[in-house]
Amino acid sequence: MAKGAPHDILFSFEQLRQFTTRVFHHFGVPHEDAAVAADVLAYSDEHGIDSHGVARLKTYYDLLKTKRINPAPVIKTVREKGSVATIDGDNGLGLVVGPKCMQLAMQKAREHGSGWIAVCNTNHYGAAGYYPVMALQEDLIGLSMTNTTAGVVPFNGAEKMLGTNPVAIAFPGLKEPPVIIDFASSAVSYGKVEIANRKGEKIPDGWCLDKDGYATNDPAEMIEGGALLPLGDKEGSGHKGYCLAGMVDILTAVLSGANWGPFAVPFAIHVAPSNKQVGKGIGHFFGAWDIEGFRDKKEFKMNIDEWVRTMKATRVQPGRDSVLVPGDPEREAYQIRTKEGIPVNKEVVASLEVISQETGIKLPY
Amino acid sequence: MAKGAPHDILFSFEQLRQFTTRVFHHFGVPHEDAAVAADVLAYSDEHGIDSHGVARLKTYYDLLKTKRINPAPVIKTVREKGSVATIDGDNGLGLVVGPKCMQLAMQKAREHGSGWIAVCNTNHYGAAGYYPVMALQEDLIGLSMTNTTAGVVPFNGAEKMLGTNPVAIAFPGLKEPPVIIDFASSAVSYGKVEIANRKGEKIPDGWCLDKDGYATNDPAEMIEGGALLPLGDKEGSGHKGYCLAGMVDILTAVLSGANWGPFAVPFAIHVAPSNKQVGKGIGHFFGAWDIEGFRDKKEFKMNIDEWVRTMKATRVQPGRDSVLVPGDPEREAYQIRTKEGIPVNKEVVASLEVISQETGIKLPY
Repeated sequence: MAKGAPHDILFSFEQLRQFTTRVFHHFGVPHEDAAVAADVLAYSDEHGIDSHGVARLKTYYDLLKTKRINPAPVIKTVREKGSVATIDGDNGLGLVVGPKCMQLAMQKAREHGSGWIAVCNTNHYGAAGYYPVMALQEDLIGLSMTNTTAGVVPFNGAEKMLGTNPVAIAFPGLKEPPVIIDFASSAVSYGKVEIANRKGEKIPDGWCLDKDGYATNDPAEMIEGGALLPLGDKEGSGHKGYCLAGMVDILTAVLSGANWGPFAVPFAIHVAPSNKQVGKGIGHFFGAWDIEGFRDKKEFKMNIDEWVRTMKATRVQPGRDSVLVPGDPEREAYQIRTKEGIPVNKEVVASLEVISQETGIKLPY
Repeated sequence: MAKGAPHDILFSFEQLRQFTTRVFHHFGVPHEDAAVAADVLAYSDEHGIDSHGVARLKTYYDLLKTKRINPAPVIKTVREKGSVATIDGDNGLGLVVGPKCMQLAMQKAREHGSGWIAVCNTNHYGAAGYYPVMALQEDLIGLSMTNTTAGVVPFNGAEKMLGTNPVAIAFPGLKEPPVIIDFASSAVSYGKVEIANRKGEKIPDGWCLDKDGYATNDPAEMIEGGALLPLGDKEGSGHKGYCLAGMVDILTAVLSGANWGPFAVPFAIHVAPSNKQVGKGIGHFFGAWDIEGFRDKKEFKMNIDEWVRTMKATRVQPGRDSVLVPGDPEREAYQIRTKEGIPVNKEVVASLEVISQETGIKLPY
């Protein structure tokens, strides 16, 4: 095992992947699917997206254990027309259904120039950015969205009605690394509020409301029945995050026939699903475009290189570090973690130990 | 003429449309194209989007008069593959090229389930929301994006490198009106800064930087060499507006072979284009999806109705008015203006008078 940071235990890439694969397989996820699901989680851990990796294994585990998720889904096409289709995920892990559906979008892009897969009856699919990165391997532009459990108010609202509904899209470069965009449509993730709460710190203006709909700087007040604010909730731009979250909710869930808005199935073992169901499971939306359908691929990639260099050469604001391009922070984390290992928070390690004890799958230390 | 508000002159819908059509036609825009271009501007004026309607006629006029825009473009397909294509707009008005290209995207959606048109060698196309509304008329989901003259810094940057790059998308309802999303990826539009400057008012935090990259509440400091901030430029979400603007810039301009980022052709007669050109004109990106390729259209529209009613029924934040759905403010303005006419600012009317004097086209009052 690699050297430890305070409160963290360091795992190698391979150690974590093997453990998660075995955990998924334990509940009847076929071995190949379990390896893919582990790869989706590993993408987050290896790239510094700590909120979406092994930190969530316990929740997937609980949902599999209580049979709220189907370990061996048989996905089926509900409708199809040329470049588009709707897939029923058969209540499988999003980590299994998602990669299969992204592959279908990519196949359609190769055939029809673009491919679009709306998915219903699925579950939490990990980091949205994983899926467009799959498309990069074939020099396609990839896109993914998902709706999530409601935690965010609509603009002017005081109740959680929409998820943190992320959008991810990626563009390949030639000599420069790809531009990889992945962001939630809320001001910040719930994870950041939880971290502030654990540390006893205040949260900035514009992040959260309390249970009565008043702005709060106390993370506990958000956690106890409050809500997150949409991206841009301030004078002049408050509606924009709401627009973005609404777009994602409709494309992922209304278009596919999944549960939308406040009815989205919760990704938590202690939260009961809404009494009202307006569709099946949650929804994803995957897209891919064949660059060659628009212009010469190499020229496009050379232009992306120039775009990346141009943005990075921007004069920096006083007091700020540097101008990055989307994907840079994750690449930097990857470089460090390749050498030093993945630091896993001790609370997360404790959750892995519970899994280990219950399943008999040995933790790699 | 309808009754006047202070400093505004009221025009009927028909009066403005006739005037703008004749102005475009005056410079050799074919009559049918001139009527479409006028319709695009009218969409903004009739729906309360005052920044994107007849207020900009003088700029289109100047660019046509100085032959910086081709009045009679012959658009051509650069590349095509199934559901996708790139179109060269032949340096036409975006108001003429845009609607033609949106029609092509819609045609592809009917054939292939979805349609995607990247456009280079084009110019400012009016309000982004006009184009998805075209798709609604055929019960398609429509999407449009454009890049624009650089006015916005990348996250942490102190220089204008990206435009206000809007995204628009619309979804049809059955009994409820459609959800029409249209927003710029900057915190606010340049227009709002200009208005504050004219009124001698301060601007809120998070809108602008001065020429040295320092935050400013003085609109004049932005106007004199400063820049707009991307949507969400505050603790924890500052990168998100930059991601969105970057996505739009790449899809509209890099993918089509137009000028991207700081090289985007300015939409202003007094601003010379960048010495460096990295492509042709500016870029648009149009998309359409055939709902029937995903699910039954009527079921989808009934679900949109329920989505709209659910969002509107959200408990309201203390001190706020109501929870709307995207498209409501524009519909409300339309209802009022249908009855009362379109109030045109006296400075805008003065610009129309210049056009009238130079062309001999009589203003309708």
